[in-house]
Amino acid sequence: MAFTDTSNLRIPPLGRRLRLGFVGGGRGGLVGNWHFAGARLSNHWDIVAGALSSRPENAAASARDWCIAPGRSYTDYRLMADQEAARQDGIEAVAICTPNASHAEIAATFLRAGIDVILDKPMTTTVEDAHRLVALQRETGVSLTMTYPFSQHVMVRQAQALIAAGEIGKVQQVQVEYLQDWNIAPQSEEGAPWRQDPLQVGPSMIVGDIGTHAYHLLHVMTGLDVAELRADMFVCGGAKPQPDTAHINLRLTNGAPALMHLSNATLGQYCALRIRVWGEKGTLEWDQEKPEHLRFTPRDEAERIFIRGSGQGIRAEAQHVAHLPRGHGEALTDAWANLYAEAGLKVAMRRGGAMIDAASLLNLPGPDDGLKGMLFTQACADSWREGGIWTSLA
Amino acid sequence: MAFTDTSNLRIPPLGRRLRLGFVGGGRGGLVGNWHFAGARLSNHWDIVAGALSSRPENAAASARDWCIAPGRSYTDYRLMADQEAARQDGIEAVAICTPNASHAEIAATFLRAGIDVILDKPMTTTVEDAHRLVALQRETGVSLTMTYPFSQHVMVRQAQALIAAGEIGKVQQVQVEYLQDWNIAPQSEEGAPWRQDPLQVGPSMIVGDIGTHAYHLLHVMTGLDVAELRADMFVCGGAKPQPDTAHINLRLTNGAPALMHLSNATLGQYCALRIRVWGEKGTLEWDQEKPEHLRFTPRDEAERIFIRGSGQGIRAEAQHVAHLPRGHGEALTDAWANLYAEAGLKVAMRRGGAMIDAASLLNLPGPDDGLKGMLFTQACADSWREGGIWTSLA
Amino acid sequence: MAFTDTSNLRIPPLGRRLRLGFVGGGRGGLVGNWHFAGARLSNHWDIVAGALSSRPENAAASARDWCIAPGRSYTDYRLMADQEAARQDGIEAVAICTPNASHAEIAATFLRAGIDVILDKPMTTTVEDAHRLVALQRETGVSLTMTYPFSQHVMVRQAQALIAAGEIGKVQQVQVEYLQDWNIAPQSEEGAPWRQDPLQVGPSMIVGDIGTHAYHLLHVMTGLDVAELRADMFVCGGAKPQPDTAHINLRLTNGAPALMHLSNATLGQYCALRIRVWGEKGTLEWDQEKPEHLRFTPRDEAERIFIRGSGQGIRAEAQHVAHLPRGHGEALTDAWANLYAEAGLKVAMRRGGAMIDAASLLNLPGPDDGLKGMLFTQACADSWREGGIWTSLA
Amino acid sequence: MAFTDTSNLRIPPLGRRLRLGFVGGGRGGLVGNWHFAGARLSNHWDIVAGALSSRPENAAASARDWCIAPGRSYTDYRLMADQEAARQDGIEAVAICTPNASHAEIAATFLRAGIDVILDKPMTTTVEDAHRLVALQRETGVSLTMTYPFSQHVMVRQAQALIAAGEIGKVQQVQVEYLQDWNIAPQSEEGAPWRQDPLQVGPSMIVGDIGTHAYHLLHVMTGLDVAELRADMFVCGGAKPQPDTAHINLRLTNGAPALMHLSNATLGQYCALRIRVWGEKGTLEWDQEKPEHLRFTPRDEAERIFIRGSGQGIRAEAQHVAHLPRGHGEALTDAWANLYAEAGLKVAMRRGGAMIDAASLLNLPGPDDGLKGMLFTQACADSWREGGIWTSLA
Repeated sequence: MAFTDTSNLRIPPLGRRLRLGFVGGGRGGLVGNWHFAGARLSNHWDIVAGALSSRPENAAASARDWCIAPGRSYTDYRLMADQEAARQDGIEAVAICTPNASHAEIAATFLRAGIDVILDKPMTTTVEDAHRLVALQRETGVSLTMTYPFSQHVMVRQAQALIAAGEIGKVQQVQVEYLQDWNIAPQSEEGAPWRQDPLQVGPSMIVGDIGTHAYHLLHVMTGLDVAELRADMFVCGGAKPQPDTAHINLRLTNGAPALMHLSNATLGQYCALRIRVWGEKGTLEWDQEKPEHLRFTPRDEAERIFIRGSGQGIRAEAQHVAHLPRGHGEALTDAWANLYAEAGLKVAMRRGGAMIDAASLLNLPGPDDGLKGMLFTQACADSWREGGIWTSLA
Repeated sequence: MAFTDTSNLRIPPLGRRLRLGFVGGGRGGLVGNWHFAGARLSNHWDIVAGALSSRPENAAASARDWCIAPGRSYTDYRLMADQEAARQDGIEAVAICTPNASHAEIAATFLRAGIDVILDKPMTTTVEDAHRLVALQRETGVSLTMTYPFSQHVMVRQAQALIAAGEIGKVQQVQVEYLQDWNIAPQSEEGAPWRQDPLQVGPSMIVGDIGTHAYHLLHVMTGLDVAELRADMFVCGGAKPQPDTAHINLRLTNGAPALMHLSNATLGQYCALRIRVWGEKGTLEWDQEKPEHLRFTPRDEAERIFIRGSGQGIRAEAQHVAHLPRGHGEALTDAWANLYAEAGLKVAMRRGGAMIDAASLLNLPGPDDGLKGMLFTQACADSWREGGIWTSLA
Repeated sequence: MAFTDTSNLRIPPLGRRLRLGFVGGGRGGLVGNWHFAGARLSNHWDIVAGALSSRPENAAASARDWCIAPGRSYTDYRLMADQEAARQDGIEAVAICTPNASHAEIAATFLRAGIDVILDKPMTTTVEDAHRLVALQRETGVSLTMTYPFSQHVMVRQAQALIAAGEIGKVQQVQVEYLQDWNIAPQSEEGAPWRQDPLQVGPSMIVGDIGTHAYHLLHVMTGLDVAELRADMFVCGGAKPQPDTAHINLRLTNGAPALMHLSNATLGQYCALRIRVWGEKGTLEWDQEKPEHLRFTPRDEAERIFIRGSGQGIRAEAQHVAHLPRGHGEALTDAWANLYAEAGLKVAMRRGGAMIDAASLLNLPGPDDGLKGMLFTQACADSWREGGIWTSLA
Repeated sequence: MAFTDTSNLRIPPLGRRLRLGFVGGGRGGLVGNWHFAGARLSNHWDIVAGALSSRPENAAASARDWCIAPGRSYTDYRLMADQEAARQDGIEAVAICTPNASHAEIAATFLRAGIDVILDKPMTTTVEDAHRLVALQRETGVSLTMTYPFSQHVMVRQAQALIAAGEIGKVQQVQVEYLQDWNIAPQSEEGAPWRQDPLQVGPSMIVGDIGTHAYHLLHVMTGLDVAELRADMFVCGGAKPQPDTAHINLRLTNGAPALMHLSNATLGQYCALRIRVWGEKGTLEWDQEKPEHLRFTPRDEAERIFIRGSGQGIRAEAQHVAHLPRGHGEALTDAWANLYAEAGLKVAMRRGGAMIDAASLLNLPGPDDGLKGMLFTQACADSWREGGIWTSLA
């Protein structure tokens, strides 16, 4: 039996789309739409069930929006897990995009029901919960995918492949920042007000909220991890009296220092996730708001701009996830679709026996990535509470 | 009965998705994937039938890629029109993305079968065919949508709304360019080799191929039309001995001059569709490769950059088609999805009686836009043949 | 005797600075300050005399501003030419920055007086005057430098050197534009109101005013000339009823087409002189408002950005005129200083016998460049008057 | 007696230029040329004497380069101070651009000789020396100007004026970075090898070298000072085993946190001094490599780009130091000229009794700015030595 050809990521290997359900994501939510769009665009999924809201009216209206049959619209995710697991045509995976504090329990419920899980970040709100979830995933063998969409941009793959191939030599320092401004005003219902509520978000709001993205990006792109860190946190204009800004000093596993700047109260910054990796032989710079470009400065030649699309220095690993020709812009929805496509491959492999080359799933964030994010978040919180002392991630 | 709420464009008004078929778009094609992605992402369509290729093997493989049931995969579009028209669950619309020369006949076939048509540009290869198609559309009453995706970018709507509201005053001159470089090398099978074949493309290759996009953009954004023009065409390095470059001087209907530059043999230009509109009170500049930004220079204040997303000067007409928050990039696939969403609204109105506010369909390109594109193309060809004389579009 | 080392352009070869006078440039002028700044920064010149204004009070005040001794401040340039020519320590060159209509006579006066001339563009207001001036220059043997400062930017040299070395292959098409907006409002005294007066400017205002810069840049960068052209001109919002905008179609001497767009009534465009040269093997793009960068797209490799400063692909011809390290910005004043430095070398060669390598003076615009500019201007005016017919430059 | 009109900064108020000498700056140096260019371009100074090098041959050749009379070229700065002080036409000010370790003694020598001092940063290599120099300056009454050129860019003034006028409200956080890459390779003679020698540079190389610029910029732009800081330093690829990189956490005097990133070993960064100031009501961003632009994001309106030049939101304080029209680029040499112009005003006031409005000299960095830079450098070194503890600047 041969490996499935995954050169076009948007072809489902089983010759059919998989059945997907949602927990959360109903009207008034934000991130649910992004999951939904990614899943639709990926062509790997039909969305057929959902506990889109715990409020019955909202759940029903939202289900209709997404063309989910009334009989498969739930208001209780536990009921959904039970009933869908029992159906012949039940969902094969669930996308969970509820407030952070509910992640652990919902994900566990579906893992136990044998339904593959696609879980929004951060994994949980405590490291203990994350450990428990990872253990449960191992025990059940059901797959668990974490949705870190930014690392699914094509040019992140390009950077990753260049670094892995030694094109910039040893990494000598890194700067990564993720700056937003949504938190300068109280959130309306539509803007997900729970993101401003510490009880639903977890102890170190800003790190769990967006620091996990920055950390995952750094990790995926460089192949390095964080050995230790120290973190300061601040209230710099956020609408609520909790940290909206973090300055984090990192020591990477290869000894290189790195600097991370996080804020969701920096007016005029929207989704400004930017990374610069300086190496012995070259430098790479990437900005999530200009995702099609990757600046590469080799040591002894003129600067180059890699542009998403075939040819001209684009590596196979990056080309693999590109869909439109150069100049015909891909952006965040395409990155989400890449993630949902790979999640589809993984679930098709587990459920339908599709033969998928491991390289095609290399970037799909799994349980370990979820746990790492929690360890990072916790280490930041610990360091901060102790006045900014160096804290190990081990 | 009330108008459907179209504030979220990705909600199908009938509570179900419409059934869509494809003619063309199979493996080895290019633009089919874009239509497909737009239709999927829009959430208004299920793709359930197709004559994806005239080659049986390719048609079958392509149908499987897109999860079309074997029984609804055709190799002859006429058969498809007949059979689908006869089915209870037959397709409600067809997307046509075959080489230009076949557009007229295929579109006519489906119009006659009562199946709504979504047709890739240019409408036809001759003005006569275009006139006939427009007449047929009127006669049958079946809807016909032209796919000009670039004018569906959110910030094109923003520019259009600002101009319509008089924010830049009288338009005094316009420069628009659409530059690409795909034509500098012979096209592989994958790159749609028919685009280099004059028989399949029509007489004035470069204008029909990309000039129609530039013209439509100018027209939609400014609300003006072209009164007369003169065109020079050149072979500047294209792989085949036919015009790859055009310099077109325009006089707009308000008397303002405009300049259009087209080429598909300009190395280092990818999908460089850019427009600058200078008015009495302000200037607007937009670049398809940076679609999220719109530069606005008012006469007596500092330059402003409008950024897609809510608030900060974004007009309702533009906000209406936005999906992600500021900084969370939308790009070309999102523009295609906007087009397919509005086409879905239109077809739902015709077929299911959905009440759709006319303003929601204002930008959906219809038969007249297709005809205008052909008149423009023809006028360019005529002017060029006559040595670049001024030629009226009337 | 050895060639002077001109590796540092700001070292005067005679071990002393040359004596420079000015005609025009007094208070209320604009361009005089730019000449003055370039001359000072170049370190080749001491400004010691001037007929800075024909109004005595202004002349005296302006002379004091520039630390010119009262005895060498004139109100009549003829008197200045006579007296300075007679002094042992008289000026060795004169910079002429008066309104266009006076150029021919003033320049002739100084050439006849044996004083080297540095003349602002355009050379004259008629082709006949230009021919006469060129003839007079040949007859007298006194040097005449035209001030086209934009082609003295370092990265223009880089582009020129790359093209000369064949790095982009045969030039296949060119687009050049020079857009400004100073003309949308009546000029105050300070803004040089004569630039809006056809009598002082010459018949085809916009071409003589800024088209000559665009033409010179195209010529210097590509090494090609214009064989024939056709021009349309328009009033698009300028403060006075005379052409403020031109659309010019060019055929270059190698057969390649080119497009030139000129306007001084394009709101939001400041000194937007931009050129793109597409060749068989590569493309170069440069923008006067971002003068430190040169975008180079080779046919089969990733885009490169050349950045002014040593190393990383910068050619010797460009490095020769660079002064600050990379990132330590040079801009227009530095370009003017390059021009005044080379003019200093040329005059030092003629007057003091300095041995200057011809390569160091290659880019210094001379009488022929002035005449070419007038022929170009005239051809545009002729073409326009005849309704935009193709007109030869021969 | 009336105040001198300083609306054109390049007009010397005494009707003559002042006499300037140099210590350091001869052939093989780097920064001397920048001082020289700034002084020439400012039109306030004639450079008439110099101890340009301690090596006699180099001193003589360099003097000839700059057209300094042989009799006023010295090899010993002490002799120069004595002789010039004794001459009727002796220098009125001295520019000192020698390696850091010699600053204190040379500056003291000239202050004692009654010759005004223009001193390159950092002021000294120890805080003690800086205190002594400040005391000596007060005692002698001779002026001392520190050359921080970056804060003399026009758009830094614009930012400063906007902040001072409350346009962004209370400053809530700041990020400033100064990144270069000159240190990744051993310096040739021309590149100032002493900058890699700790004995000549002082204990905390990277902070004294470029951190002082970043700190001064932050201070000038925001009007705030640093209350306390903590610093980590690293060797990240610099050619010599000493810190080439610093991560500095700051608490400003208004309580706001700030982040400073310094490195001269970041490949692909040239003179990347960038600052972002986030305030309650708006954000300002400026990049030294794009000095003409200032991005301003007000809280409730679209982003604005302020562009150097008159009108369109440019404040009088910024316009005061602008020389060329919008789009006609000014850059670093112009900033140096602004500094030398204001230094000229100050010396003309002290020596010639010119009446200069204090506002015209507001930004001229004086002894306190030099001392502050040393206190900052020392606090960084102290913090680092103690493992990165919070350290007060008081």
